[in-house]
Amino acid sequence: MNSSPRVITACLLIIGNEILSGRTQDANLAFIGRRCDDLGIRLREVRVIPDEEEIIIAAVNGCRKAFDYVFTTGGIGPTHDDITAASVAGAFNVALEQNAGAVAAMQRYYKEPGMLNDARLRMANIPAGAKLIDNPVSGAPGFQIENVFVLPGVPLIMQAMFDGMTGRLVGGAPVITESITTNLREGALAGGLARIQENYPDVTIGSYPFFRKGKLGVNLVMRATQREKLDDSAEEIRQLIKTLGGRVFD
Amino acid sequence: MNSSPRVITACLLIIGNEILSGRTQDANLAFIGRRCDDLGIRLREVRVIPDEEEIIIAAVNGCRKAFDYVFTTGGIGPTHDDITAASVAGAFNVALEQNAGAVAAMQRYYKEPGMLNDARLRMANIPAGAKLIDNPVSGAPGFQIENVFVLPGVPLIMQAMFDGMTGRLVGGAPVITESITTNLREGALAGGLARIQENYPDVTIGSYPFFRKGKLGVNLVMRATQREKLDDSAEEIRQLIKTLGGRVFD
Repeated sequence: MNSSPRVITACLLIIGNEILSGRTQDANLAFIGRRCDDLGIRLREVRVIPDEEEIIIAAVNGCRKAFDYVFTTGGIGPTHDDITAASVAGAFNVALEQNAGAVAAMQRYYKEPGMLNDARLRMANIPAGAKLIDNPVSGAPGFQIENVFVLPGVPLIMQAMFDGMTGRLVGGAPVITESITTNLREGALAGGLARIQENYPDVTIGSYPFFRKGKLGVNLVMRATQREKLDDSAEEIRQLIKTLGGRVFD
Repeated sequence: MNSSPRVITACLLIIGNEILSGRTQDANLAFIGRRCDDLGIRLREVRVIPDEEEIIIAAVNGCRKAFDYVFTTGGIGPTHDDITAASVAGAFNVALEQNAGAVAAMQRYYKEPGMLNDARLRMANIPAGAKLIDNPVSGAPGFQIENVFVLPGVPLIMQAMFDGMTGRLVGGAPVITESITTNLREGALAGGLARIQENYPDVTIGSYPFFRKGKLGVNLVMRATQREKLDDSAEEIRQLIKTLGGRVFD
């Protein structure tokens, strides 16, 4: 008999007033969500919170106990509103101190005289005991403290840093997905779909209606860790759509 | 002397595995964030959570006590994974029951015989005591129970429903914003910007670096409820950029 492997979970904290105000469209959730699937880690919650120390501390402390991994994005630059590093130090009740490795990394990046000014040196202030996360794009590193991984908000930089540190993450079986788009509407599919879901408890079947150019349709997404079950459930759903007189768009 | 008016707060719960997996890019946060600014409501937190009853109940109950308003999007369709209405009923410990007003609204929309099938009728199951939120696009209503507003996930439908029920929301002074984009980098701006922030405690100044086509720059966003302070702080920031030899892109 198989014993179910423990599910490895993660939470993402998106730190920044600009996301909450709707001015900036977050692009980090989608990237980290997909990477987690590939790594066999379930991204179970995302929180968007403002640049405020007490709120960041409470969120970090709540989430680092509730999930295997916590990723944060945003708030580690050189300006007055960049308070993530200090807040994470507060959450772990450790000092925020200039990190020699971070200074060295920034010296390699900011080579011209005067470039590595006081404001930029703030980015070398890292919670005591944290391990740096290399920034191959723009010098200033992120850091890991216990199960919390602190990353920048700029997507291209965050992505390069995330992909450089995935060796530190241990997941389970990768989640594989298949999707089927149809012109049928949810109300027509719902009964048959519920029966298929019952028959495939190891497959998570999601039904996502869309509304484009005045027409409704449905995108069905199957998620599983076993290829055969994924394929079998997808085949049953295609049959269901045909039986109901619908079309499948691949 | 002015007494500060109480700040009215809100939280958005985005319910759906498809957002967490990174497959679907959420578009509701940006819309609701901007509407909240217009209404003088501070969107203080957004949580993305999976389609799981216990998690939805815990999030609704935590947030409805912590914020003036809670908006939820997603999970109110007719399929097996649509469990938001039942979960909200669970959070309030009230029955989920067929709502005559919801059935009537759906009968007006689903006019052809057989269209209003059992699956679709599930969408008329509403927590006892809730007030409906009209759906001018696709029939099935959302609902409000106390300070929790339950909306669908499809953006065009959610937006029409949100705009139809803003009369139920009472906010404070609208938040107005101004933004300035420059080719300067954050490290050059940080010192002067911190001084301007200190001089304008009623203006929230955010600094958001971007990285496009291999170049870094900064988008500065000022948020306030008073036009004069907003304009004055923006003017000082433009002067700072000029003094530092940077360019302002309007």
